[in-house]
Amino acid sequence: MTDQPKKSPHDLPDVSGLSIGILGGTGDQGKGLARRFALAGHKVTIGSRSAERAEQAAADLGADLGVRGAANAEAAAGADVVIVAVPYDGHKALLESLRDDLAGKIVVDCVNPLGFDKKGAFALPVEEGSAAQQAAAVLQNTEGARVVAAFHHVSAVLLLDPEVDETELDVLVLGDDREATDIVQALAGRIPGMRGVYGGRLRNAHQVEAFTANLISINRRYKAHAGLRVTDV
Amino acid sequence: MTDQPKKSPHDLPDVSGLSIGILGGTGDQGKGLARRFALAGHKVTIGSRSAERAEQAAADLGADLGVRGAANAEAAAGADVVIVAVPYDGHKALLESLRDDLAGKIVVDCVNPLGFDKKGAFALPVEEGSAAQQAAAVLQNTEGARVVAAFHHVSAVLLLDPEVDETELDVLVLGDDREATDIVQALAGRIPGMRGVYGGRLRNAHQVEAFTANLISINRRYKAHAGLRVTDV
Repeated sequence: MTDQPKKSPHDLPDVSGLSIGILGGTGDQGKGLARRFALAGHKVTIGSRSAERAEQAAADLGADLGVRGAANAEAAAGADVVIVAVPYDGHKALLESLRDDLAGKIVVDCVNPLGFDKKGAFALPVEEGSAAQQAAAVLQNTEGARVVAAFHHVSAVLLLDPEVDETELDVLVLGDDREATDIVQALAGRIPGMRGVYGGRLRNAHQVEAFTANLISINRRYKAHAGLRVTDV
Repeated sequence: MTDQPKKSPHDLPDVSGLSIGILGGTGDQGKGLARRFALAGHKVTIGSRSAERAEQAAADLGADLGVRGAANAEAAAGADVVIVAVPYDGHKALLESLRDDLAGKIVVDCVNPLGFDKKGAFALPVEEGSAAQQAAAVLQNTEGARVVAAFHHVSAVLLLDPEVDETELDVLVLGDDREATDIVQALAGRIPGMRGVYGGRLRNAHQVEAFTANLISINRRYKAHAGLRVTDV
């Protein structure tokens, strides 16, 4: 028997060659992530229901970035990692329509099911527990699809701001497949200032999604673009 | 008409003279908070169902700290600020039994409704939405009682460790009464390394309580005592 040295949770794979598709990439969060991943050297395709709108959103980011636009199914099928950045309303239906295209993919859900009223933002109840668990339920029979929850708390404003070089925050990465969460942690680390930190299993994704409502309250009170850092890690 | 300068969210009141009662103060979290607030110069009373056990817990912290022990009702009635640090199981019944003693108090709920199984910790559903909202519901007819949620993520191990001088974390403080949340933010700031950050209304307390399950996962993965810092605030 040999002593196998235990893998450090800080040892992450090289993900520099992975291509990224962003469903709902015409929204601010999707566009912001597309911009930062393209700047980091990744091949990025923005997806939308309309290929034309996706192409327009990609062009808006600047031709020099090389981001492409395509219909959601094509953006999903052509990428190693697929980020789901659609509004919660429509999240389930979109994933149901892409079951075949998502086979074998790492599916990164960054959807925050939130409601808004005069008092600000609040978490919406989700039958499956969280948007990420909803994605996992929809894709449970899609071969090789692995759902990871991440990028909930990134500020689209900062991601899109050409004056901002670094976005200081830890991206909490949740999932039940260690290889997949390691890859997504490494991807988060490709954006300057960001770090991917393992944040637990998918069954604990709800509170991470819902915490976006608290960040909105914090931003309002402090006139900030608040993010989280995890200490002692 | 005069221009009233708007209050900065960083301007917090002087709370150095406030006395603190800690219900369920014989548990590690309660004892840890008692120790740190006593070190910061506050008059602290640990409460327990049994006055004798409370006195014993206070004595365990060291006679020089000056922490007192008393039955829960006495610990509550004699303090300006009452911290509720009991296990979730028993939380509601305890507060129901102390309705009269909590009149006029700031009630700081730091209870995390969690379950545990082989896969780790997970959030328990709470009928009222969160432990803090449960406290507010129980105390809705208690005159002048104001419920604030805070101190969910503090590590009892670090609070009790005599080798640890600073506990690096931001305490998220939630509530619907600005004066009360400001006071509790200021109290958090009395513990070296801690800062009290407004974290939203009570209706957004669930995810802060539940996030303790994620911190437990993080601690296990990274062998850490993780806490949160809020950036850009």
